[in-house]
Amino acid sequence: MTKELLWQQVVAVKERSPLVHSITNYVVMNFNANALLAAGASPIMAHAAEEMDDMVNISGALVVNIGTLDSNWVNSMKIAIKAAEAKNKPWVLDPVGAGATAYRNQVIAELLAIHRPAVIRGNASEILAVANAENKTRGVDSTHSSNDAIEAAKQLSNQLKCVVCISGETDYITSNDMVTGLKNGHALMTRITGMGCTASALTGAFCAVQADAHLATCAAMAMMGVAGEVAVKKAGGPATLQTAFLDALYTMDVTTFMETVHIV
Amino acid sequence: MTKELLWQQVVAVKERSPLVHSITNYVVMNFNANALLAAGASPIMAHAAEEMDDMVNISGALVVNIGTLDSNWVNSMKIAIKAAEAKNKPWVLDPVGAGATAYRNQVIAELLAIHRPAVIRGNASEILAVANAENKTRGVDSTHSSNDAIEAAKQLSNQLKCVVCISGETDYITSNDMVTGLKNGHALMTRITGMGCTASALTGAFCAVQADAHLATCAAMAMMGVAGEVAVKKAGGPATLQTAFLDALYTMDVTTFMETVHIV
Amino acid sequence: MTKELLWQQVVAVKERSPLVHSITNYVVMNFNANALLAAGASPIMAHAAEEMDDMVNISGALVVNIGTLDSNWVNSMKIAIKAAEAKNKPWVLDPVGAGATAYRNQVIAELLAIHRPAVIRGNASEILAVANAENKTRGVDSTHSSNDAIEAAKQLSNQLKCVVCISGETDYITSNDMVTGLKNGHALMTRITGMGCTASALTGAFCAVQADAHLATCAAMAMMGVAGEVAVKKAGGPATLQTAFLDALYTMDVTTFMETVHIV
Repeated sequence: MTKELLWQQVVAVKERSPLVHSITNYVVMNFNANALLAAGASPIMAHAAEEMDDMVNISGALVVNIGTLDSNWVNSMKIAIKAAEAKNKPWVLDPVGAGATAYRNQVIAELLAIHRPAVIRGNASEILAVANAENKTRGVDSTHSSNDAIEAAKQLSNQLKCVVCISGETDYITSNDMVTGLKNGHALMTRITGMGCTASALTGAFCAVQADAHLATCAAMAMMGVAGEVAVKKAGGPATLQTAFLDALYTMDVTTFMETVHIV
Repeated sequence: MTKELLWQQVVAVKERSPLVHSITNYVVMNFNANALLAAGASPIMAHAAEEMDDMVNISGALVVNIGTLDSNWVNSMKIAIKAAEAKNKPWVLDPVGAGATAYRNQVIAELLAIHRPAVIRGNASEILAVANAENKTRGVDSTHSSNDAIEAAKQLSNQLKCVVCISGETDYITSNDMVTGLKNGHALMTRITGMGCTASALTGAFCAVQADAHLATCAAMAMMGVAGEVAVKKAGGPATLQTAFLDALYTMDVTTFMETVHIV
Repeated sequence: MTKELLWQQVVAVKERSPLVHSITNYVVMNFNANALLAAGASPIMAHAAEEMDDMVNISGALVVNIGTLDSNWVNSMKIAIKAAEAKNKPWVLDPVGAGATAYRNQVIAELLAIHRPAVIRGNASEILAVANAENKTRGVDSTHSSNDAIEAAKQLSNQLKCVVCISGETDYITSNDMVTGLKNGHALMTRITGMGCTASALTGAFCAVQADAHLATCAAMAMMGVAGEVAVKKAGGPATLQTAFLDALYTMDVTTFMETVHIV
């Protein structure tokens, strides 16, 4: 992994403006749509079963986020994942709150059984839960550091033949036994709801322009982290951080990116 | 059309604070409610079939936006439109993503068959799609300039006996063969999700205080564009633009409005 | 009531970071989640009937807000309230738009019949409506001052054996015949959608760390009002007020709190 390769993906998203279809949770929809627009992508948010095939068909990638799932939405997620398989479009799973309830665990298993995702992105607790590591999560915020979950991520990656990304103080992107670490961002980012969901949304955008899902995920996480570090310098708290973060996605330039991104 | 007439409508919304009932998409609900409040109106967002009659009854206008439609919500939209007809309340249609899926086209046709709206507002691609111009849209962002759609808008306006507004670099408000152009705003506004939806929401507020829907729509679009131009001077990216835009709706004064609004 | 007692609750939320499960309206979800995070709590927003028991079980408090209710969501609210009763977790009711439609009034009666809430928080019109004061509300914004509703709040508090909080220019927190008044905040806060809903969300967080629901509610309302006053000094309109408000929740310090909070 090199900084140059990562930057090329950032440029590709801005130049090609991929359509990203998100079936995501109510809490983050606005933030994620704005993050996709700021990064140069074009968001679609739709969930009606009747139009899932059409929406996946015109999109470059699908993002499925179970944050505020219910049976109607899960039905549409399943149709969309089948359409992604049929049309050979990458899909990204964000298993929000995995392990918090039996229902979430069941739904995650059902979604993964349809067709392998290109990427699963979650915090350490969520990745551990998805990997059946008999872990109990505490709501939607992580109680594990990302290091704890690396072995579980490797196993899950091998099992599902997909990229598994653990976001945290250091982000780990695993593909089989290959692990790339990125150390960017700032702790204040955890005080904004949906930062993880935004990382998943951007991962979808990058997967739409880069077939190598490992590289795409690394680039998405790098862009998140760099934007966070740029933003925190202007922030007086979490809300000004969020505003500055979105602006930083939009104004991202090669010099700032190269100087800030930290591959470990 | 005169600047003075447009400004009088801005004042009327601030003075009369009309209730606007929106059945709109999840992505923009918060932004639209805040825009309505900033402009001086009072937002209601509700969708339960059981209360659509009551909600329309207490409101000055109804806004129907199909951005994140599904069959349950479409059912409530239909009840609300029937109630608007029965109570003689104006309703505004925002045909988000028209042309993107067969389902959207079908729903739009069904809604328009119930009762003519006071106003249809969309981007050029959406207006072309609604006008059965056999146009393919690309998701929710426009791939046509607003000029392309003027003839389609005129036809649609004649056919439905309603105002048709095409928003874009220049906004065109058409009523039968009359066309008013407004050239305000800034390209950065397209990098904020739901700016078009916000224009539709404000159009609802203006229709609630001004029975001439052509004038009401022109005033809403003028206020949007002027606020955007005021805001862009304070913006370092799309997120600070959005914040400044909402503040500009709230602080709008006659001098700034008159100096900035541009009728073409 | 003393300022010191109030401040101790603010500290307790920051130190113990309670999980708060909200079944709330679409318009305010993002704002409320960010407010909870900024105040130090940890938000969960979920509504699937299948996971209501699990979610209540891991949470410290439940907040039920009927702003964008429908029959599916009301069903989940009922399950969650039953779970809160079974697990002895406090729940907070925000009767948004009470009195605006017959359906809302019916749902509020049904929810209150399941199990008494720890707190009901609304504006004066909503509290009057809940108290069957034969009052007609005008949408979701209050047309009554909080003083008007004090007697109704006392009756409701006695009847249901719960705290009733009327928010307004002065906030009144009533428990049986005891009334605490708090005079903080700023009129510009009413131009941001969901400020009242945010007060209810924070009330849930405070109830999760303080069994005395009267004290918990007073502390939540005090924190809201103080943050609003801090924020208004930095605001150029409602949107910058909202950003500064969230930052102020996060940066709240004892000196500012003590100097600003106003018990009447």
